[in-house]
Order: sequence, then structure tokens, then C-alpha cells
Amino acid sequence: MASISVNSPADFHVHLRQGSLAALVAPHVKKGGFDLAYVMPNLKPPVTTTIQALEYKQELERIDPSVEYLMTLYLCPEITPDEIRKAKAAGISGVKSYPRGVTTNSDGGIESYETYYPIFEAMEEVDMVLNLHGEIPSDADSNTHILNAEPKFLPHLLKIHAKFPRLRIVLEHATTRAAVEAVKSCGPTVACTITAHHLALTVDDWAGQSWNFCKPVAKFPDDRSALRNIIIEGHPRFFLGSDSAPHLPHNKSTSTPTHGCAAGIYTSPILLPLVAHLLESFGALERLEGFVSDFGRAFYKRSIRSGNRKVVLRRPAEGKDLINEKYVLGADSVVPFWAGREIGWEIAED
Amino acid sequence: MASISVNSPADFHVHLRQGSLAALVAPHVKKGGFDLAYVMPNLKPPVTTTIQALEYKQELERIDPSVEYLMTLYLCPEITPDEIRKAKAAGISGVKSYPRGVTTNSDGGIESYETYYPIFEAMEEVDMVLNLHGEIPSDADSNTHILNAEPKFLPHLLKIHAKFPRLRIVLEHATTRAAVEAVKSCGPTVACTITAHHLALTVDDWAGQSWNFCKPVAKFPDDRSALRNIIIEGHPRFFLGSDSAPHLPHNKSTSTPTHGCAAGIYTSPILLPLVAHLLESFGALERLEGFVSDFGRAFYKRSIRSGNRKVVLRRPAEGKDLINEKYVLGADSVVPFWAGREIGWEIAED
Repeated sequence: MASISVNSPADFHVHLRQGSLAALVAPHVKKGGFDLAYVMPNLKPPVTTTIQALEYKQELERIDPSVEYLMTLYLCPEITPDEIRKAKAAGISGVKSYPRGVTTNSDGGIESYETYYPIFEAMEEVDMVLNLHGEIPSDADSNTHILNAEPKFLPHLLKIHAKFPRLRIVLEHATTRAAVEAVKSCGPTVACTITAHHLALTVDDWAGQSWNFCKPVAKFPDDRSALRNIIIEGHPRFFLGSDSAPHLPHNKSTSTPTHGCAAGIYTSPILLPLVAHLLESFGALERLEGFVSDFGRAFYKRSIRSGNRKVVLRRPAEGKDLINEKYVLGADSVVPFWAGREIGWEIAED
Repeated sequence: MASISVNSPADFHVHLRQGSLAALVAPHVKKGGFDLAYVMPNLKPPVTTTIQALEYKQELERIDPSVEYLMTLYLCPEITPDEIRKAKAAGISGVKSYPRGVTTNSDGGIESYETYYPIFEAMEEVDMVLNLHGEIPSDADSNTHILNAEPKFLPHLLKIHAKFPRLRIVLEHATTRAAVEAVKSCGPTVACTITAHHLALTVDDWAGQSWNFCKPVAKFPDDRSALRNIIIEGHPRFFLGSDSAPHLPHNKSTSTPTHGCAAGIYTSPILLPLVAHLLESFGALERLEGFVSDFGRAFYKRSIRSGNRKVVLRRPAEGKDLINEKYVLGADSVVPFWAGREIGWEIAED
């Protein structure tokens, strides 16, 4: 295949940050081939009210008005059923739940779900989406650690789904065979995002290599096979959410004996070519449009806005491009996943 | 307990390097409370002949003649049964086997054991010890990765032991419950070293924290419990081998998108206080002398040399010491495990 045309790609999980870092990374949504960004609310402070979410949306639209931003709230004890109805009326799409302490800016995350049942009931009623970061916190006494934190979370997913069968739920950035099987076993209201980098990495790749460290961590080869196979299968409840998460290079590259590096992998500026490259590597290139556009848009009920482009990927002139070493704006810079490595697709400029 | 006296501690697995780095780290064996160092042969080039091993021993004795150095050869196709007999006659203690590519300077490691049966036969005959780095290389197709590389190695241990029941074998730096169980199931000729850092760490501690990254990687809380429990039990075939492995700080602290950091944790200069601190933390302080001296010396048949000291540990003046941030010699420096952290024991100076 010499070129591929994809209907208005949509990234259903992305971190766009604030301030100067947002000014650098928000334009990378479009640069990476995407017209829609489902924006995570884990800012400092987290986005917990409709007003904050709308202000944040305005900030992003000032940076790049050509992208459709779908906004989320950060699930916390302050959120009320009334706030849910207000958020829905204001066009906010979902509510993100973070278990306490498991990833960047999740110190205010939740500890148990029962207390949120009134919120879930309101969400079900107004048809807002619940986005689950599906890990439980590590605990040595119960042998819970970062490699089984996702499988141990899955009973929570199944329980919420059983209790609220009409509530649309997305298990975010699945990394394990167990998660894929759990989502498959659910009804049509439960979907799952998969990142680009989890289609590439395993635990061996982030051991001693901080640039490949993210949460949830990449798991075992068999888990990666499960993620790849559900894409090969073309299952419509599994679609792209990049979890692209920029950090300044000094926070990614260096650790001291007392401080580790930041968790997160940055894929936004190369996202569509990267996903095409990866899907091609395991024989799923024909699933590209479903995975990066149709399936997610159908689940989220987001049809393509008028005027949105078809994005065309082509083979680079030499057969391969090299991924940029970094992207800079003012004093800030970010380094993309696979920096300096070869990639077999590029976006054809308009 | 206000002080503890330990008979001539012996570290049955340590990396002392060469040249200027050896000049910095070899004196740390004694500084850390140890009178005997069982020295690993993974230099550049590896130590594969009796002559090289004796030259290396002389280099170490020039740096610190007060330590007893037990030398090893690096198992490779060039080693012959004749070389084994020559090595034994020259006082060399063991032969170390590294699977290819699994750790620092192991590119020349072995791929299968059958071809070494004539070597093992000669070793059994002259009573040399076989030291096994017990991991198989990662392989995505068979779902082999750094977290199951040790359990998947264990059938090799059992097979060699069955074939050469009189050959003394040490499974080095065990990290898993499976390894502990396998060694327990063997006869009296099979023993196992345990490092200090694997008594402290789990996978969560090295994720995104390169200073805690070593090979084999620290595993799960349940595995750590198995290591701790076999020490609590006072099993005489499980004893300390620190696997203390110095790297220059820039090789530990920093990764680039194309290069990860070095694998290895440096414990030599604080080793005896650290082991005492850790054993005390899980209620095994009474096992200290067995674990760091008696058990290993009995297995290796190394009685205490005349003139060797009893090492006394005491409580620091303020109840806690802070571990040094680094150790420097000339242009070289090394950062110890737990740098800057509190530790509850110190060596009483003579």
C-alpha cells in the first residue's frame, strides 16, 4: 500500500497540560493527524467543576481552535449529581476516575466506588461516560504491585457495569490479556482504549529505560499479543486512546537516588504514523481507520464535524522517516516516543 | 540489642572491577565489614584463564591485601578440563556461568549447558564450585521476560544437579519464591546466594527509578517474602552474596531515548550494617552471623583465616546514621544503595 486515507482521526485519551507546556503540546494533536482530543482532567489542581472544564477548553481552543476538545471532570468527593447534570448541559463528555496515587497527579484519586454510586446513577441518567484508570494501589501485604494492579482492578469494572448496565464505561489504556478478556465479556456499554506505546513495549523495554516508563507499565509479551490480537480482530469496543503524556526532558531522563523519573510517554506529534507503523508490523493495517476513528466515534456518539479533513498517510520518500529528536517552544521541550528511530509512514501535507 | 559481634563476614558474590574503579571500590569490601570477597569474572575482557585470574587477584591484593579474594573463571567455550585442573591447583574457587546477554558484560555467556558437561565433570572431580546466573534470555515468542527469566531457568539447575550430584552449585542472587523452593529441593551440594538489595526492593521500587535497577530485577512482594523467610528459617544453604556492582553515576542516573542505564546496585561500603538493618526489619537479626559468615564459609569450605577480626556492629550515636551520598577517588565516584537514607547500625571502629 502506498497511501492510506483515514476519516478524521480521534484520540480518546490525551494529556494536554496547562500554560506554556499546553502551548507546546496542544498543536501536536493536529500535527499527529488527529481532529479530536478527549482531554484528561489531571491538572494541578484537577478539573473538578464544569466552570474549570470550560475554562480549560477555552485555553486549548485559543491554542488550536481547529481541534474538537471533549472535556472531562476528575472524579472526587466534591462532585455532586447536580454538578453532573450541569456538566452534561455544558457539553462535558465524561468523568475520569483515578485510583489514589497510581499515576501523575492522582493523589486526590478515589479509594472505593460505592460512595460514588449516586454520581454514577446521575451519569447513567444523562448519558455521560465513566473513564476508569484501571489499577489498584500497590500493597505488599496482599502482593499487589504494578504488574498485577490492572488484573486486580477488573472486578471493580465488572461490578460497576453490573450495577449500572446502561452507564457507558471506558477502561482506559488496557495493558493485559485479563483486561481485554474482561471488557470483551461486558455488554455494549463497556469499551476500552489502547495506547500506541503499549502495542510496542513490554516490561523488558522500560527496565532501566526511563523514557519507556509509563503508568500502567507495559506488561508481558503475552499481554501485548492480546492487545494486538483484539485490534487484528477488529473488535469495535477497542479503540485508540494515546495516553500521550508530555514531561520536560529532565523529568524523564534523570533519576536521583531519592527521586525517580516521571511516568508518561509522549506520542501526540507522531501518533497517526506511529499507529499505522505498529499496526502494519503485526498485520493489522487494514484495521487502522476502525481503531483510530470509527470505533471510538461510534462509542462516544461523536460524528465527524463538518469540514473535518480526511487524513492521508503516505510512504516517506526514502521509505523511512526518522522521528524528531524533540519539539521545542520557548524554554520548554518534549521528546517523542521512538525519538530518532525509523518510521514507515508520514502524513501527506495538504 | 546494643551491639552485635560477627565472625569474619564473607561476601560470596561481588564485582570489584578493574583499574581506577577497582582502586575506589575494592577497599569498600573491608569498609563494609567483610574479610572475604568471592570475586566475579565479568571484566572486559572476561577472566577465562588461570593466569588472568591470578593477575586479577594480584591487582586486588595490591589495593587491599587484608581481604581474602576467592577467584572465579568465566564459563566459555575456550575453557577445557585441563584448565579447570590448572585453576584448581592455583587456588581458584569457582566457575561462573552467565546466560548470553542477560547482564553487564555477558555477551560471551553460554547458550546451552550440555556442551559444558566435560567441564562440569572435571569441576566435580576437583571440587570446584559452579556459580550460576540463573536467568534465561528474554524471548517474546515464548513469553519469556525479565520477570519470569529466573523461574524458567530453574529446570537447568535441577538438570545439572541431577547429572552431577557431587558438583557444588550456587544459584546466584535468587529473587523468586520459585528459586528458593528449587534450591531447597536439591541435595546438600546446591546452595543459593541472596543479595541485600533484594531483601529490600520489589518491582515497584525500580519502575522509573534507575538507581534501583539491577539484574536479576527485584520481583514481587511475595517473592521478597520468600527470600526473607528462608533467612528467618536459618536455612544453611542460603547465604549472602551481595552482587554489589559499582557503576559511575552518569551511567546509573541518566538514560537517553536510545540508551538505558546500567544494571547494578552498589552495597559494598555499607554492606554489613545494611544487612543487619534489613534482617532486623523482618525479625531475623539473630540469623545475621549465619547468613553473612557461617553458612557460606561452610558451603565453600573456607574457614576463617588466622588473624581475621570479629566485626562489631553498634547503634549509631543518634540511633540512626545517614548513608553516604557518594564515595570518590580521583575522577571516579560511586553512589551506594540507599544513599542519604537512615540506617540503624554502624561498624564499631577498632
